[in-house]
Amino acid sequence: MNRVPVEKKVLNENQQIAEKLRARFRDNNVLCVNLISSPGAGKTSLLERTLQSMDRNTRVAVLTGDIQTENDADRLKRFGFPVRQITTGGTCHLDARMIEKGLEGWSLANLDILFIENVGNLVCPSSYDLGEEAKIVVLSTAEGEDKPLKYPSIFFKSELMILNKIDLLPYVSFNLEQARQNARRVHPEIEIVEVSCTTGNGLSQWLAWLNRRLAAHHLEPIEQVG
Amino acid sequence: MNRVPVEKKVLNENQQIAEKLRARFRDNNVLCVNLISSPGAGKTSLLERTLQSMDRNTRVAVLTGDIQTENDADRLKRFGFPVRQITTGGTCHLDARMIEKGLEGWSLANLDILFIENVGNLVCPSSYDLGEEAKIVVLSTAEGEDKPLKYPSIFFKSELMILNKIDLLPYVSFNLEQARQNARRVHPEIEIVEVSCTTGNGLSQWLAWLNRRLAAHHLEPIEQVG
Repeated sequence: MNRVPVEKKVLNENQQIAEKLRARFRDNNVLCVNLISSPGAGKTSLLERTLQSMDRNTRVAVLTGDIQTENDADRLKRFGFPVRQITTGGTCHLDARMIEKGLEGWSLANLDILFIENVGNLVCPSSYDLGEEAKIVVLSTAEGEDKPLKYPSIFFKSELMILNKIDLLPYVSFNLEQARQNARRVHPEIEIVEVSCTTGNGLSQWLAWLNRRLAAHHLEPIEQVG
Repeated sequence: MNRVPVEKKVLNENQQIAEKLRARFRDNNVLCVNLISSPGAGKTSLLERTLQSMDRNTRVAVLTGDIQTENDADRLKRFGFPVRQITTGGTCHLDARMIEKGLEGWSLANLDILFIENVGNLVCPSSYDLGEEAKIVVLSTAEGEDKPLKYPSIFFKSELMILNKIDLLPYVSFNLEQARQNARRVHPEIEIVEVSCTTGNGLSQWLAWLNRRLAAHHLEPIEQVG
């Protein structure tokens, strides 16, 4: 049997919905970013740190994908921003239709940033456009510096690599310079920020990236708390 | 469009090939195990440690899957055992046909253990039977103790959970007892061994598990070197 045409049809259908979402984000001046990583690389921790650092008047919302549990939404709701869990029930990635459904009832006109946290998977989510302005790949130092070469698609498609868990560098075999080189070999223009969601190191660089993106939308910079 | 019947057909086709492989492994008394984990959890490091500890006369071979590179096969070939890379070219899992093809030219009659290292992905590989006797899930302490609940399918289908990177326990937020409970909540009979491929701690338990499985095949225990 021939699987390729079926896969193409699914992806084309996804692309059509993604383009509609992209137009809605553009019309409402919403910055939408799609966070992708392996399980446990720290997407939820990064969002916790990000939401924690924001003034509650910032117009931010989160759609967080998971196969089975609502744990991530429970972790993220504490910060007082709108958060919805998308439980895929076994599907290995978020698709555009899930995002469309996840947004139901939310007014995009009242939003500046939409964070999408994808299912923990470094492979499949890279094939599904969600209408986002930028994909962001999160890589943990515990995973090894070879990952951009082994999973090139997501590093090629991401505008930013967030290298997380730099606090573990003294305890893991991870060549930081080689990791940067590997990411740039796959994608020469990729931006890189290095953070620790445990210590908070480097997070200001990530927030600066977000603020540059907001500025491009002529939106107010994120107000940091404390 | 209706995707489910197509997926079912692909999986049924896979199942037929997997059953043929299982019969071949059984007829030749080969213990075949299928190692599955997130990217960077340590499957290759575990195999390096395993091959390193074995007498070269042990009849072991490895098929190692990756999306793009041959890095893993290069790392594993150093130990003198037959190793072949299966490069999936984008596909997020190994399937039974890839294994059938990967085995071409190898005589199963001359083999006691076949290790299959799957693509780094905690989701999709759990759906594809490769004819193995046992699936083994490798979880790293850097990923967090919640993963069995968030990715239940692979923990439910695995006979053994290898909890790797226990050397990082002092430096990461990981509740070991909770991780065990979460794994057993999904799969009450799952066996658990805790190892560090960096320090070598706990590896004897993993080799003991392998030897128990070989004994069930009435095969000689693995001869350890040194």
